[in-house]
Parts: sequence; C-alpha cells; structure tokens
Amino acid sequence: MDPIIEVISIGTELLNGTRQDGDFDIIAKAVNKLGYRISFHTTVSDESSQLKDVFEGAIQRAHVVISTGGLGPTEDDITRAVVSDITGKKLVYSTEVEQWIRDHFAARNCVMGQVNLTMAYIPQSATALKNDIGNAPGIKLSLKKNNVLFLLPGPPREMIPLFEREVVSYLKKTYLVDKKISNLYKITGLPESAVQQKITDTSDLKKHACDYVFLASPGDITLKVTPTGNDRKAVKKIDSLIKNLFGDYLYSSEDILLESVAGRLLTVHKKSIAVAESCTGGLLAHRITNIVGSSDYFLTGVVAYSNKAKCSILRVSQKTINSYGAVSMQTAKEMAKGVRNISRADIGVSITGIAGPTGGTKEKPVGLVYFGLASEDTVFVDKKLFTSDREGIKQFASQHGLDMIRRYLIGRLERSD
Amino acid sequence: MDPIIEVISIGTELLNGTRQDGDFDIIAKAVNKLGYRISFHTTVSDESSQLKDVFEGAIQRAHVVISTGGLGPTEDDITRAVVSDITGKKLVYSTEVEQWIRDHFAARNCVMGQVNLTMAYIPQSATALKNDIGNAPGIKLSLKKNNVLFLLPGPPREMIPLFEREVVSYLKKTYLVDKKISNLYKITGLPESAVQQKITDTSDLKKHACDYVFLASPGDITLKVTPTGNDRKAVKKIDSLIKNLFGDYLYSSEDILLESVAGRLLTVHKKSIAVAESCTGGLLAHRITNIVGSSDYFLTGVVAYSNKAKCSILRVSQKTINSYGAVSMQTAKEMAKGVRNISRADIGVSITGIAGPTGGTKEKPVGLVYFGLASEDTVFVDKKLFTSDREGIKQFASQHGLDMIRRYLIGRLERSD
Repeated sequence: MDPIIEVISIGTELLNGTRQDGDFDIIAKAVNKLGYRISFHTTVSDESSQLKDVFEGAIQRAHVVISTGGLGPTEDDITRAVVSDITGKKLVYSTEVEQWIRDHFAARNCVMGQVNLTMAYIPQSATALKNDIGNAPGIKLSLKKNNVLFLLPGPPREMIPLFEREVVSYLKKTYLVDKKISNLYKITGLPESAVQQKITDTSDLKKHACDYVFLASPGDITLKVTPTGNDRKAVKKIDSLIKNLFGDYLYSSEDILLESVAGRLLTVHKKSIAVAESCTGGLLAHRITNIVGSSDYFLTGVVAYSNKAKCSILRVSQKTINSYGAVSMQTAKEMAKGVRNISRADIGVSITGIAGPTGGTKEKPVGLVYFGLASEDTVFVDKKLFTSDREGIKQFASQHGLDMIRRYLIGRLERSD
Repeated sequence: MDPIIEVISIGTELLNGTRQDGDFDIIAKAVNKLGYRISFHTTVSDESSQLKDVFEGAIQRAHVVISTGGLGPTEDDITRAVVSDITGKKLVYSTEVEQWIRDHFAARNCVMGQVNLTMAYIPQSATALKNDIGNAPGIKLSLKKNNVLFLLPGPPREMIPLFEREVVSYLKKTYLVDKKISNLYKITGLPESAVQQKITDTSDLKKHACDYVFLASPGDITLKVTPTGNDRKAVKKIDSLIKNLFGDYLYSSEDILLESVAGRLLTVHKKSIAVAESCTGGLLAHRITNIVGSSDYFLTGVVAYSNKAKCSILRVSQKTINSYGAVSMQTAKEMAKGVRNISRADIGVSITGIAGPTGGTKEKPVGLVYFGLASEDTVFVDKKLFTSDREGIKQFASQHGLDMIRRYLIGRLERSD
C-alpha cells in the first residue's frame, strides 16, 4: 500500500510571494525518487488557530505528515504547542534535549539564552530527533498504527539531514515500495486537446487502465502515462501504441527540451545553423544557445526587426518587402536563404510575424507567423496562426522554428509552398 | 475586516518537485500588494477524493478560495466536477461558453475536437469568466455571503489576466482595505548582501521601525519597505533616505522591469538601438523585444557566436581577434561600433564573454564578460566577472547590458577604459 503523505510548510513569510519554499522541493524530489508521491502540500501562516486547522486536517487524511518550520525558541514558533494541543499530548521537559541545546552553545563558545530551553519541551510519547546542524530538535510522534507526524526544523541545512535520516528510513521500513512504472512523452505541434482526443479515440489504449497526466506550455506537451491496477505488464504494449499514435509529433521519450533534441541532431548530422528572427526578437537564438555546447553548431543569429535590417544584413530584396510585406512567405524564404548565405551555415532558419498586441490587420492578424528553412538545395516554408499574448506568440513561434530544424534533420519536413 | 484567503494549486506535477508553482507566487504578490494576506496555500494532486477533501476544508475556513488548474478538457481536469459534487451545484451546459470555445478554435483556423465542449459545463448559479488567451474559461461561484470560489485555469498566461480582472476587483470591492503603505525600490548593479549592508549601516534608517523584504534575481533586487507600528507617517522620510542611499543603482520605484525602463528612456530621448551579442546568445534582444512598442526603437540584433560572424557581419577586424581574443575589451568595442554602423542605430551595445560551463581558462575564466556601448562620438566599455551557471551568466550579462543603456541615457555611464 502506498502511504498518503502530506507536507505542511509553516511560516507567514512563505505566503506573501517573496520567499520560495526550498524545503518542499527537496522533500518532494526525495519522496518521488523513493517511488511514493505526496498527495497534499499545505502552507500556512504562524497563526495558532489556522495551524491547528491544518494539522487536524492532515492527521485525518494522511498516513505520514511532515511539517517544516516553527520549532525555534521565539514567540512565533508555535508548532510544538499546536501539535500538543490537538493531539492531547502534554508538553514534557526532556533533560536529554536540554543537554543537546547546552552542548550546541558550548561547542560554539556562545552564552545560551534561557529562551532556548523552551525547545526542550516535547509532546508526551514523542521522540526528539537530534539536530546536528542547528539547535532546534525535530520531533517524531506516532498517533496510531501507520499514522505518524514528523516535525522538522525550517532551515534547509537542518531539515535535510533529519529528513534523510528519519523520514526516508521510516518510509522505507514501513511501506513496501510498489514502484510505479511510468512512461514520458514529449510532443510538439499539437494542442493539448488534440493529444487528449487522439488518446480517447484509440480503442486499443482503452483496454489498458492508465493514468494520463498532461503538462502543457506553448507548443509543447509533456504526457506521462502510468499503467494502473494489475496492468503493469502492459507497459511495453502501451508504449508502442502511443509512439505509433503520435509518430513525428513525438520528439522525445526523455524529459528533455526541444532545443536539446535539435542540438543533438545538429551534432549527430554535423550541421551548422544560423537563424534570422523578426517577431521572436532573439528568443530562438536564446533557446538554442541555452544548450551547453551549442557553440559547436550555432554560428549566427540576426534579429532583423526593422525592414532596413532585413534588406541590408539579410539581403532580402526591397522589392519583395514592397510587394508582399515583411510578414509574408516570400520574405521568410529570403530571410532563411540570406542568413544561411551570410553565415555560411548548413541550415538557415527564419521567423517573421506579428507578435502584437498592436500591428495586426484583417489580412495579417496578430499571431500570424511565417517560417523558412533553407538548406543547400531547398527552401522549406510554413505559416502558422497562434492565439496568445506577445510573449506567448514568441514562445509558440520559437518552438515551431526549433521543430522545423528537428523535422528537417530526421527527414520529416514537408515543403508547404 | 480582512478576508481569510486560501489558494489551491491543482496538479500532480506540482507535487513531485519537478515543477515550480508559478501561479502561486504571482497571486501571493498581488494579494500582498493589495494589503491582504493569504492564510492557506494547499497543493493537491489530480485525484478526485483528495481534491474534494481540500475544497471542503477550504470552503469551511476561508472567505475567498482561489484555485488554479484542472479546468482544461482532458480527463485529468476534474476541478469542475469536484466543485459541483461538494457544493451540490449541478453542472449545466452553457451555450455562451460553447460559443467562446468555438470562436477560439475558429480564430486559429483549427478544427475543434468534441472533447473541448466539456469545458462548457459549469456549476449551476456560477458565472463563467471569459478567458481571452486560452480556451478554458474560469468560474466564479458564490456560496453564501462573503464566501466565494474562483476557479482559474493553470497556465500563468491565462490565469493572470483572469485573476487581475476578476479576483482583484472582487477583493477591492468587497473588503475595505486597510492598506499598508509600502515603498518599492528596483535596484540593479549591487548584490543582495550589499543592499542589505547599506541599509544596516545607515543609522538614520534605524530610527524608523520598518519591515524590509528582498527579492533577488540575477543582477536585480526588488526591495519592499513597509514602516511598521505607529511609524507610518515616516514614509516620506524613509523614502528619501533610501533614494539617497542607492542613487544611480535605483532604476525605478515602480514594479517594472529594467527592459521597460530602458525602453521608456529610448522613447523619451528618441534614440534607436542595435545590439551585438556573443555569450548572451540573443537574450538581450529577446528582453528588449518583450516590451510592447519596442519596434519603435529596436532596429537590429546580431548574435555573433562564431568569430567569422563577428568579422563578416559586425566588421570586427580579424587582427583584433587574433591579438586580443574574441572575449576582450577591444572586440567588445568593435562589436558595439560595428552593429551601430551596419544598423544605422543611434546606440550600439555589445556583449562578449564566456557563459560556460566549458571554455574558461585561467586568464579568461567562465563568467568573464566584456561590454561595449557605442554612441555617435564615444565608445564606453566595461568588464564584469559573474559567478553563476550558464543561464545565470546569460541573465546577469543581459541585465548589465540593459543597465548600460539606462545609464547612458540618464548621463551616468562612465568610460572605464
């Protein structure tokens, strides 16, 4: 049986948007690695009645409750008192913990303020967990069979060793790990609803009980498929069904970015690349150059925002711009050829469009984007209409540009002019 | 009366430590800015019984419940069904929402899969909130006096406009705000610790009881100062002390990005700009062009990753590169001049450095970056050593490039060669 795990992060500062909760990320990654999952994460202020409400809820619904924060010696450290109150376990003074606290100060040649001894009070029947880094001990309190509270200090340096030593070993010991086997699919070029529809419409997939989790960003879908129930042997069968279903739209079965996949393909095929951007304003080059080692294949980017730059640097003819406009198939074509020529790259890619929010017309609305990819002997072109805000359109268009590179290198880019 | 606010983030992917919850940060900051605070933040998986438990708890203890996620058309989007179930409000089909969805697909010339129409079902008596960016509408459901649920879509680009339009205006209208008076300062060019130290060292500031909140990203600090206790009348005094303390490092007292400030200055001074980037790989151009209206002043960007591109496009002399290297003051200077000349811009800015993780030497380590800014009659240069990873160095360097533009336009850029 999988335990239901709840993490409670305590601290007013975590709720005003100024501080990231580093503890939770660490706990979540570790729990995930063990093959369990966290069902609830609650963040709550240092306010007594609200913290009570949260602990009461957690004890009702979770097997393992892990809290971080509120164990120090100051007035706003109320975790001990609240847990004592709601569980009916009186706070009792631990001379063992007193000694830990005294040792901690002695080791640093510091005078110990009396207020620190409040940390020696722990709920009856609880176990104090020695903190080797700071002076607030953790607390483990078993309430009934398979229902346990771990109260951990807030600072990550103190929380992590206690979590590893106490919580991880408890989970391993108490719950047989029934690890779930998941497959991950990275898909581009289809909207989330189309991905869902394809899955729903595939009758062979319905034979297998699966959890489908979708994660979407502009032009990019991460699909995680986990067979459930007794169907875990079907993993391979499901994998081949899904790969077949999405074909070229599937760009990886690893948790990897499209710019990495494009970079790997450029490396494998020993091809260099240059890009000419208008509406994406440098985002395509930025994404390509985020990848370590991209200097091996990326030569040049030109952000030709003005028409003058399109003509003078990329050598797009003024006539083309006059006849068809800067946002047109013809201009995209000449930009791709131009950037390829001036940089002597194997592949030239171009993007020209209208990112908005202004500048759209009825014929050429905001979100209209043309693409070009010039190789030695061919120029491929493409046209898209994206519905989003300025930054969203930049994201969508850069994603499609990267996908054209990928498709070209796997021999799946079709001429559409 | 202050409302008790609970935010519910829905999505299994938020609980495994691989994805940050961007929505919550945005909501928390906005709520904080209004002078309210969030009491509970609960993150829960896409599992029906667990989501029910969370919504039930939230409705009990909070006046305003804001959820994000789970409103899309796919099987794991269960927010509508769960809220309907626990509130007893049946899901009813809205032909108005159906039309929104159809319009959304029609505007993109896409075929709408039938599955999308599941989004037209909303709980009885609820109000559908039109989503202008994506196709999943938000939902507002009033349960009793001063108890309201806002169900918002998960993608930040879609969530933010709905949150601003619906939730912020609801909060303002419904609750009398006992607004805390805070001042905000945007600072660049100083590390967080130096900003902190300057404040600690200023004895005149100590006379006033204040809360200081710091928010740091590469090269950028947001400082929020809130006078506490009975010291609210001191706001003006504190404001002038802080402005005096940070001088030119302070680039705005509004919550605004440096690229916006640079853009406003370029507009006011009627100057055009072109940029030549090496290690930032297009990020500087990307940031400049994220600003609406940037096409009025941004002409050209050149990402000259290869030395060949530096010479052939930017007209850096081969001799300079041979003598001093591509990462040098001299090359930065020629890049800035070169991009200014080829684009006929008023200002040319250049960045050349080593983003790493490889490519560093003892003399020229990873993080070393040279900058140039060429105007009609002068070339300013600068040199920095940033300690970060590849993407961090790109961020730091693009921030410093933007700051040189700002400093140049306010007459505070010094020649450092």
